[in-house]
Amino acid sequence: MSNKWGKTFGELYARIRQRHPLVHHITNFVVMNDTANVTLALGAQPVMAHAREEVAEMVGMAGALVLNPGTLAPDWVDAMIVAGKRANELGVPVIYDPVGVGATKLRNETGERILKTLRLAVVRGNSGEVGTLAGAGGIVRGVDSVEGVKDPVRVAESLAQKYNTVVAITGKRDIVSDGQRTLGVDNGHPMLQTITGSGCMATTVIATFCAVEKDYLLAATAALVCYGLAAERAVRRAQAPGSFRVALIDALYQLTPAQIKAGVKVVEIE
Amino acid sequence: MSNKWGKTFGELYARIRQRHPLVHHITNFVVMNDTANVTLALGAQPVMAHAREEVAEMVGMAGALVLNPGTLAPDWVDAMIVAGKRANELGVPVIYDPVGVGATKLRNETGERILKTLRLAVVRGNSGEVGTLAGAGGIVRGVDSVEGVKDPVRVAESLAQKYNTVVAITGKRDIVSDGQRTLGVDNGHPMLQTITGSGCMATTVIATFCAVEKDYLLAATAALVCYGLAAERAVRRAQAPGSFRVALIDALYQLTPAQIKAGVKVVEIE
Amino acid sequence: MSNKWGKTFGELYARIRQRHPLVHHITNFVVMNDTANVTLALGAQPVMAHAREEVAEMVGMAGALVLNPGTLAPDWVDAMIVAGKRANELGVPVIYDPVGVGATKLRNETGERILKTLRLAVVRGNSGEVGTLAGAGGIVRGVDSVEGVKDPVRVAESLAQKYNTVVAITGKRDIVSDGQRTLGVDNGHPMLQTITGSGCMATTVIATFCAVEKDYLLAATAALVCYGLAAERAVRRAQAPGSFRVALIDALYQLTPAQIKAGVKVVEIE
Repeated sequence: MSNKWGKTFGELYARIRQRHPLVHHITNFVVMNDTANVTLALGAQPVMAHAREEVAEMVGMAGALVLNPGTLAPDWVDAMIVAGKRANELGVPVIYDPVGVGATKLRNETGERILKTLRLAVVRGNSGEVGTLAGAGGIVRGVDSVEGVKDPVRVAESLAQKYNTVVAITGKRDIVSDGQRTLGVDNGHPMLQTITGSGCMATTVIATFCAVEKDYLLAATAALVCYGLAAERAVRRAQAPGSFRVALIDALYQLTPAQIKAGVKVVEIE
Repeated sequence: MSNKWGKTFGELYARIRQRHPLVHHITNFVVMNDTANVTLALGAQPVMAHAREEVAEMVGMAGALVLNPGTLAPDWVDAMIVAGKRANELGVPVIYDPVGVGATKLRNETGERILKTLRLAVVRGNSGEVGTLAGAGGIVRGVDSVEGVKDPVRVAESLAQKYNTVVAITGKRDIVSDGQRTLGVDNGHPMLQTITGSGCMATTVIATFCAVEKDYLLAATAALVCYGLAAERAVRRAQAPGSFRVALIDALYQLTPAQIKAGVKVVEIE
Repeated sequence: MSNKWGKTFGELYARIRQRHPLVHHITNFVVMNDTANVTLALGAQPVMAHAREEVAEMVGMAGALVLNPGTLAPDWVDAMIVAGKRANELGVPVIYDPVGVGATKLRNETGERILKTLRLAVVRGNSGEVGTLAGAGGIVRGVDSVEGVKDPVRVAESLAQKYNTVVAITGKRDIVSDGQRTLGVDNGHPMLQTITGSGCMATTVIATFCAVEKDYLLAATAALVCYGLAAERAVRRAQAPGSFRVALIDALYQLTPAQIKAGVKVVEIE
């Protein structure tokens, strides 16, 4: 099973280093530095720009657009909509991270606005966030899922179908679905939960892969495999969160297509 | 002397890992990532949210609220007041870090507004900042105390009495007072001064302990002991600031109740 | 050649540790934490403050002012102008980093406004950014120079003459010119390109040196030598970006005048 995906994913990883696409982020204050460094570690170029006056122009140079309203305010959300609409016109994939949807009315309304206004390539969240977006339950406290949905596969599939997008629910097993095909990714490590922005970094990795591969189901799955593998490798060198975070960036940078081929853990879900 | 406190502080540290409270931060851009990682290293959950439209709702899920206007602007301060008032209604402890009070009129006015409007569980600052708040002198340049107050114990006591709060003045010896009882903490290390946000991280650790212990004098003291101990342990592994910062997060994560019991350096001040 | 500069640069580095000047930053969200840590590693004190209500007051305590509109918005640019004007009145050197100029109209207009309104001590950018400011070409995508100018020496000289400032174009060889004298710095390492904010950190190092030395050509050159040397030393300990970033801060902190004297690579350009 694994080898079928491993070769393709290794090729996508290598493609990023050949093309070094620009990944435009409108993202939260907590993770800007981390996600910029993740983008660079993969061989792509990050740009963080949020002013309504320039986002449409900036996204015109980008290979992908990340919308991550983790520390949202109304003017930032407006800029996300402006950038997202322009990205849609240009065919630039838009990757949305619904941070904390389910926790407050503002976050729920923002999520609904983004889903209904923009055409999204991928939505990546935890089980509680995606469950809220799908109207399928899940409890979010702050930005963490306290209680996930009962059947993440069905939730991912139905949300993907409803909005014609790819949905990735990250967790012990990541679920990725375009509404027709659904894959499970078993790469990763619980240490990711001990550092801030581990979900946001996953979203950035997905966006970076989407910048070089138009099959967004494939791109998102490859991204989560590589990110999970990097975490697995990092934890061999670092068993506490400060050094784990450093080792994670190192591992993303040092990953090779051969390691990806050997380490991929993907299952097809019926 | 130490053993009396050591056991209690170790239990509080363990309690955080059992309950993993949510710590809502409205804080500055410089330290958002660091303080989120500190919260996670302790076993709690951080959320950074500053939009006036959602802070009252967010704080309703929180075990503690941090107000840190280090990179303040008027709309952020307004959101702090909204969140703080709601926290007061709900009995959620509010921890205030008066970053740079004494440096500018805006910071002084903000400090006065927060002190007079909100009921604070703990105020944590350096000697210059707290001296300014107390009208007892102290000179602040930027966000650093250039000249502290002459008698930090009396300043902490009088400010604590005036506003019915706990005051923590961090320095070579940390002073913690509720106006009646005053404690000194001799844990810590001068390397903390070589990294940005070391004061802000101390405030976050205090808030995290306040989320699990209603005796805020005890909580703040336990927090400064654990933070100081982590610094002491980190400096054994790292003698320069880049690696020290990494080791500090690691040490906060790896601390054990036994280490706390063995390492606590607290004195009662008459 | 080297020894002539080495002794002077070592003395400037030592002077920072003696005077520990305050370096006021109005800078971008991505690098605030990194540049604050860089300032501290050098022995100076950072303060990040952007509210229009306080920047004029804050800059009055500062030894240098950094203007870095990397994540610009109109109100932040207005605050930069207010702070810059006050710095000009007080003789506080203003160091400008034209992040992403060339990428969008907003960035170009902001660059022009800053250049025409303020008297700048140093402008530091990559070849594409400075080329755009000088009207000499260069292509910027996001915040990275895709295609530099053909003759960076002439571009630096002409921009320095036009605005009576020092211009530093960083790259494989850094070019520093005050319009009359032009120097090349060959210290540095390509690993700097794998971490976010490496240009912004260079700007902060320049500002810190300008806070202790009024010959800004000398200060900027010394800064780029020290920053480059730190990168060279860091890469001996770390070959991947996560750990390289940590080692870079460590190396800036651990640098000695003797190392600077031994390692300086500066050439005079006719």
